[in-house]
Amino acid sequence: MWVFVWEKGYQETDSVVSSVTTKAKGVTVTNTSTLGFRIWDVADYVIPPQEENSLFVMTNMIITMNQTQGLCPEIPDRTTVCKSDADCVAGSTSTHSSGVATGGCVPFNETVKTCEVAAWCPVEYDAHVPKPALLKAAENFTLLVKNNIWYPKFNFSKRNILPNITTAHLKSCIYDAITDPFCPIFRLGKIVAHAGHSFQDMAVEGGIMGIQIKWNCNLDRAASLCLPRYSFRRLDTRDVDHNVSPGYNFRFAKYYNDLTGTEHRTLIKAYGIRFDIIVFGKAGKFDIIPTMINIGSGLALLGVATVLCDIIVLYCMKKRYYYREKKYKYVADYDQGLSSETDQ
Amino acid sequence: MWVFVWEKGYQETDSVVSSVTTKAKGVTVTNTSTLGFRIWDVADYVIPPQEENSLFVMTNMIITMNQTQGLCPEIPDRTTVCKSDADCVAGSTSTHSSGVATGGCVPFNETVKTCEVAAWCPVEYDAHVPKPALLKAAENFTLLVKNNIWYPKFNFSKRNILPNITTAHLKSCIYDAITDPFCPIFRLGKIVAHAGHSFQDMAVEGGIMGIQIKWNCNLDRAASLCLPRYSFRRLDTRDVDHNVSPGYNFRFAKYYNDLTGTEHRTLIKAYGIRFDIIVFGKAGKFDIIPTMINIGSGLALLGVATVLCDIIVLYCMKKRYYYREKKYKYVADYDQGLSSETDQ
Amino acid sequence: MWVFVWEKGYQETDSVVSSVTTKAKGVTVTNTSTLGFRIWDVADYVIPPQEENSLFVMTNMIITMNQTQGLCPEIPDRTTVCKSDADCVAGSTSTHSSGVATGGCVPFNETVKTCEVAAWCPVEYDAHVPKPALLKAAENFTLLVKNNIWYPKFNFSKRNILPNITTAHLKSCIYDAITDPFCPIFRLGKIVAHAGHSFQDMAVEGGIMGIQIKWNCNLDRAASLCLPRYSFRRLDTRDVDHNVSPGYNFRFAKYYNDLTGTEHRTLIKAYGIRFDIIVFGKAGKFDIIPTMINIGSGLALLGVATVLCDIIVLYCMKKRYYYREKKYKYVADYDQGLSSETDQ
Repeated sequence: MWVFVWEKGYQETDSVVSSVTTKAKGVTVTNTSTLGFRIWDVADYVIPPQEENSLFVMTNMIITMNQTQGLCPEIPDRTTVCKSDADCVAGSTSTHSSGVATGGCVPFNETVKTCEVAAWCPVEYDAHVPKPALLKAAENFTLLVKNNIWYPKFNFSKRNILPNITTAHLKSCIYDAITDPFCPIFRLGKIVAHAGHSFQDMAVEGGIMGIQIKWNCNLDRAASLCLPRYSFRRLDTRDVDHNVSPGYNFRFAKYYNDLTGTEHRTLIKAYGIRFDIIVFGKAGKFDIIPTMINIGSGLALLGVATVLCDIIVLYCMKKRYYYREKKYKYVADYDQGLSSETDQ
Repeated sequence: MWVFVWEKGYQETDSVVSSVTTKAKGVTVTNTSTLGFRIWDVADYVIPPQEENSLFVMTNMIITMNQTQGLCPEIPDRTTVCKSDADCVAGSTSTHSSGVATGGCVPFNETVKTCEVAAWCPVEYDAHVPKPALLKAAENFTLLVKNNIWYPKFNFSKRNILPNITTAHLKSCIYDAITDPFCPIFRLGKIVAHAGHSFQDMAVEGGIMGIQIKWNCNLDRAASLCLPRYSFRRLDTRDVDHNVSPGYNFRFAKYYNDLTGTEHRTLIKAYGIRFDIIVFGKAGKFDIIPTMINIGSGLALLGVATVLCDIIVLYCMKKRYYYREKKYKYVADYDQGLSSETDQ
Repeated sequence: MWVFVWEKGYQETDSVVSSVTTKAKGVTVTNTSTLGFRIWDVADYVIPPQEENSLFVMTNMIITMNQTQGLCPEIPDRTTVCKSDADCVAGSTSTHSSGVATGGCVPFNETVKTCEVAAWCPVEYDAHVPKPALLKAAENFTLLVKNNIWYPKFNFSKRNILPNITTAHLKSCIYDAITDPFCPIFRLGKIVAHAGHSFQDMAVEGGIMGIQIKWNCNLDRAASLCLPRYSFRRLDTRDVDHNVSPGYNFRFAKYYNDLTGTEHRTLIKAYGIRFDIIVFGKAGKFDIIPTMINIGSGLALLGVATVLCDIIVLYCMKKRYYYREKKYKYVADYDQGLSSETDQ
């Protein structure tokens, strides 16, 4: 009974089909020695420019300008430092090397010599991540999430831009769990804060944020009561005590040709926050078939009561022999019974 | 019983595991004042070049050529028009601004003055979307969808390019719900038309189309009867009366370096149609365990009949007292019963 | 009973919520007539640089350098070869053409004439796929998969980099089903080999590999026993006898501006392997509600025994008349019964 009413056993249910589009907005400036004064807008920091249920915002980066194909010394580390050519195996390449070794041992700087590699030169030096993050102002960028849902069984569809949201409101509103829980525009800093993390910490090494949209709808009621509920979660859980390979980053390059037709590239190791939009939900609507099935099962469970009572009375209670006597009519004389049957 | 036969209660079921690849084909030309005569092919209009279950085809765009980092006046609107420097706050940036204000108020044209910003200059002017869409010929582009499915429990796999489709047929066929329902090549215009929308309307501001592939297979029958069913749906439902933030667009840029090493970019606000491929389905196959469980549950439901009859007879009918008397043997003399038990 | 214990009917279950990030590593060189000696690193062969649950590694390619918008003859095939201008329809374009026909018939080489098209010139000639694959060394590239899972009902989260994996181990380990089944770094060649295919074959025309991560957890036991299980599957099943449209490839371009501002591009038809990371799993934990429901259903099934016995005894056995007589008390005199009821 409880199951029937509480779990809405009289309803047929359906899972949500969803489509999501996202759009980030915001501009910031950086002023670094390598890049000088530089403006960053959406086309610069969203990579790739569109994805299905996801959006990456670059918050930090290591830029290696003007790489060309050539020969240069490796970044010094445990495996690349060398004393003479004998320490470097020509043609060798390991998982962490930037290029293919030529077999030469060349000076990296005045004190250290490293193996020479054929690579995009100069090779990237990524030991120091800028801190605070270069695009720390991304905290104030906004993210518009457009979400259309559809319940195929009930042919019910709805979008997260509710009918009472006007174009003017959409231009200025910002999601807030208490004051504006249905505005589909989120401030990036607030998303991270709602999940209980610090945006500035997360911006340095990157991470994954989940924006969860829950559409639980009781379609026996008015469609206007079917509303999206937003929640936020950091998806790349960080153990404080087991901080191996934290954050989120990847490398990409912009390619140029110079006057002589030589290919150059700017290599960017991009750290940032990927926002994954996760839509889920169930809709229920009264339907006669699950109602009948659930009522049936419920009653079948009642039938158990009879069996249980019998078991207790006949096998467990002190006076069980007495009850058994009353309960069962022993078909005592088998042969007699047989004869009386043939008599009929 | 009905549930058992109709819902195939004697079968074990499994959900589909799927992989999708897509490939668009088609070429068109545009002839505009900014770009001149220009050819557009797959590498130009599919952005990003590959995605997992999705493909974006650009159908319209606003191009801002030859942007460089610099200072320039904002596009005039309610917040950017100014009379003197006092109207512009240096360093300020809002969600909708193109750059960071310098604090200056400079002439935008002969009549209007706007705040100066540090930005990619000249800033984009996107108030007017080209209509009809620039790449309106995308209606005739084709989309090949390759889909492999797998039912892990039954180790059954199949692809949507059916065994009877030859390479020659695949080069020339076009999906049609009636004449060729198994050709995996779709004309973009037809996809939109099948969903009941107009391609030319959709091309202007963009949108999301769902290509649904349904693989419902009864594996008790021949594998050749397990066939894909295609259906099409516009996923970004548009309310005619609530047309807030319609369509689908995003911005991306192509970066160039000029002679002096200065970075230029061409900013493109791309409007277009994203095709999301949604694969779903269930396979069923006879299996002894669900059969037994379902038969059991069915019979248990029959047991309910007994209980129901009793309830009706004993509590609802007029002659209930008479039946109760017949039904129950009251174990009248409790003490006597106890003594008779101990006697045994 | 069997169902109850074996299928853990006393547990509440939950499905996994997952986030995935991937990172490829590896460098190789090619030496071809068109490109010369060239280094390929991550930024060159991973396209696009980041995706949600997927990573594409380019293994082979057809490069068409230095295309510009212009007029040039089509690649000769059945439809493009012509004898005079009369064979070419101006303005026509078919699905497989590279551009829009100008109506002219021009020499492709000394012996063949083809229709002239307005296109990115020279047009791509993709009849011959390099074999072996250009980036055949991708077999030794590695792929780090970082996966965080979360069971919302139990608020249980875990990552595939287990607590006992140190930074040092993570730098050097390689997944092996037997010797190191929990190392999250995979050699691309091994992934393909585990699925029973040849990397070098697959590299030529491309394909899709599934990396499946299964998290089946019994949360009644220690959390440290909840471990990821990796398995590998080729998702684009290849019928040997039905080899229509095999492999996986797509086209993309890198755009350049030359001195005069003319746009050039390098068109790349990229063949490669897309690695789709598929995370699934169920967690179970003891909970009183499903336990009660399942015990109830189980006992209800026991009730069936009574009904079944009755059916067999009363309808199937030889002495059924005798038993029926004993079982049923016929309420013989209906009118009498009625009167006796009113008497009470």
